[in-house]
Amino acid sequence: MSGHSKDQGGDSFLSKRRFTRRQVLGLAGTFGAGAFFGGGSVLASESAGGQTVEFYGRHQAGIATPQQDRLHFAAFDLTASSAGEVRDLMREWTEAAAWMCAGESVGEENENAFIPPDDTGEAQDLTPGRLTVTFGFGPTLFESDGEDRFGLAARRPSALREIPDLPGDALDPDRSGGDICVQACADDPQVAFHAVRNLARIGRGRAVLRWSQLGFGRTSSTSDAQATPRNLMGFKDGTNNLRAEDEDLMKRYVWVEDPGWMRGGTYLVARRIRMLIEVWDRTVLGEQEQTIGRHRNSGAPLGKKDEFDDIDLEARGPDGLPLTPMDSHVRLARERLEDERILRRGYSFTDGIDPRTAQLDAGLFFICFQRDPQRQFVPLQRRLGQNDRLNEYIQHTSSAVFACPPGAGRGGYVGEGLFA
Amino acid sequence: MSGHSKDQGGDSFLSKRRFTRRQVLGLAGTFGAGAFFGGGSVLASESAGGQTVEFYGRHQAGIATPQQDRLHFAAFDLTASSAGEVRDLMREWTEAAAWMCAGESVGEENENAFIPPDDTGEAQDLTPGRLTVTFGFGPTLFESDGEDRFGLAARRPSALREIPDLPGDALDPDRSGGDICVQACADDPQVAFHAVRNLARIGRGRAVLRWSQLGFGRTSSTSDAQATPRNLMGFKDGTNNLRAEDEDLMKRYVWVEDPGWMRGGTYLVARRIRMLIEVWDRTVLGEQEQTIGRHRNSGAPLGKKDEFDDIDLEARGPDGLPLTPMDSHVRLARERLEDERILRRGYSFTDGIDPRTAQLDAGLFFICFQRDPQRQFVPLQRRLGQNDRLNEYIQHTSSAVFACPPGAGRGGYVGEGLFA
Repeated sequence: MSGHSKDQGGDSFLSKRRFTRRQVLGLAGTFGAGAFFGGGSVLASESAGGQTVEFYGRHQAGIATPQQDRLHFAAFDLTASSAGEVRDLMREWTEAAAWMCAGESVGEENENAFIPPDDTGEAQDLTPGRLTVTFGFGPTLFESDGEDRFGLAARRPSALREIPDLPGDALDPDRSGGDICVQACADDPQVAFHAVRNLARIGRGRAVLRWSQLGFGRTSSTSDAQATPRNLMGFKDGTNNLRAEDEDLMKRYVWVEDPGWMRGGTYLVARRIRMLIEVWDRTVLGEQEQTIGRHRNSGAPLGKKDEFDDIDLEARGPDGLPLTPMDSHVRLARERLEDERILRRGYSFTDGIDPRTAQLDAGLFFICFQRDPQRQFVPLQRRLGQNDRLNEYIQHTSSAVFACPPGAGRGGYVGEGLFA
Repeated sequence: MSGHSKDQGGDSFLSKRRFTRRQVLGLAGTFGAGAFFGGGSVLASESAGGQTVEFYGRHQAGIATPQQDRLHFAAFDLTASSAGEVRDLMREWTEAAAWMCAGESVGEENENAFIPPDDTGEAQDLTPGRLTVTFGFGPTLFESDGEDRFGLAARRPSALREIPDLPGDALDPDRSGGDICVQACADDPQVAFHAVRNLARIGRGRAVLRWSQLGFGRTSSTSDAQATPRNLMGFKDGTNNLRAEDEDLMKRYVWVEDPGWMRGGTYLVARRIRMLIEVWDRTVLGEQEQTIGRHRNSGAPLGKKDEFDDIDLEARGPDGLPLTPMDSHVRLARERLEDERILRRGYSFTDGIDPRTAQLDAGLFFICFQRDPQRQFVPLQRRLGQNDRLNEYIQHTSSAVFACPPGAGRGGYVGEGLFA
């Protein structure tokens, strides 16, 4: 990373770049494929159009962005010893993330045999894949074991508090928490992996990976343009999610006003929810549908035909019982206080075999964004954790919360308001 | 799985199916989207064209098939107590795999509230994603701890023997071996996951998952139509791979003639190769290129311009030393005996963080197909394991070998020749 260390605290390394991946692709076209860097890149060039999401802006990308198909989420612990080091790290991470989201390599592309390449290279011929990289700060950045590690304790937003123990939690501390999170989303998993790997590499000596999670299928729609996907229970998930196009709702439920350094930011809650799919798969369809409160095939509320039909919580069946059971997931999630709405942006995962049961370790890596986790996610999940019939089939195995600062402007960096 | 148990040993459940996923999609179009099963499926219908790979045929699909982007590989151990039970399992697995590869659900699609759904449902609105499912039999199916478990020992092909200990192996026995393997490849990882999950479910009581591996990016080309991808070292991988279009080479190196029940089959070797990417990423470009024997950007042999330029093993640099080092990967792989060629069909993987090192646990899940592992993969890897400069940067952490029988005809099943 010699290219980076030269730049620390000085000029951005943007100005020093001689060739970008995009420019190289252009050159290949101009001078004939294969004339300079070989022919393999041309495929990427042809399909790169419309594949990038702008990194810079008022909000960080990866929140209101229509959800990509794949996730690589990583939580880091800081080993840096001063706020200045963390600030430099955020500056370098911001620049690197911006380049990668633009479909470029990290740092300088060069042929210097005597230094390690700035970029690890595995995304070189791939499209940008709508990559977004979203950063968040955990409570432990501000205070850890009662210690004000970086002199930032006074700047901790009151909304950023550890998620309390919730009913039914079975958390693995080694897969929970973290000082800084990186949420890399892309339509190509190798592009998302590449982002996390290169940020980890840049962070060397200042941040170490604490845990990470791959997600292979989105489980929410965050845009009117997206069909509702199915989770690993086989049910449509996210029908009534907030839609990012609705700016009034986003303002009301997602984007933060204060403290000032968080204006335009939001809070991310991540929960790894293991599904006991072996048990679920043995369950009869009627019980599955009563548990969720929707029909499996159509996604319609019980007794209705279409996914987007209104849920009638008063309706009763021929037996006089509520058509949507009192402990069904949809009813409990629907009966939330109006204040509790959240923007869900989760992914399905599998992490191989659970050696204790020889079953697939799989489920939903739940991510949501909100203005205040203590008023939105926490009361919602407390009620679900106590009453939801779904609890027979799921287990929350990890938990984390992060303050995602607003987006950076060009030349700035994510978290600038905190460190300035 | 009541639908399956009814059918065991009797009629195929194919004839009993009332609606298939494809037919349902067709109905939705005929009667108006949402009229019957809801509107969500229509998206899949629109993009399903050209997305299926024929399951039935002389060879199993997933070998000569142009490589898909994603992998879910699973190894099962049998708990069945008779060859008849294993035969029934292969019959049911074959039928289910054929349906899934055609983009259909497993078993009957119905709205019966009183039984568990035959299909777990998470692929219901997805395209078939060029899914292939390839089955293989491990040596332990024929004999385990000296025991002829299923009366099949006499039918074990002589080419199916455990891979011996090889230089530098650091194998995890819990991620090695297995009685039967399932290689599910698709362009959509959720489709591949769905296949393994549903086969595991059908196998309940007869087969348990032993280990599994996700792969997120292909690391070989198996077709002239595919560009060479990059592995996680950032180098193009598979430039000189066999191409499945070349039937003479496939016949010479991949497809098996005898014993009779294996005619048209092949042998699969799987090796999980961990890359020490932290070490690799600190290595200067020149050393990386000398290690591989190719230029990183272009993929060209050292001293050449184009990826597909011939390698000149005699060429010397200005210093009089061989341009392609004696211990470079390309030279050692190239100097193999002519008999040792293999069809590589591997994937990149990452399995989160190695807790001992806080590094990403990532690398290459190597899969290759050949007529005889003892004459192809084993001597090749023995030589590489002894001399390859690449060994400083990799570790083989799992190993398995399987006999992949020929493909099944309609109405037949994979492995029929063995159990008949």
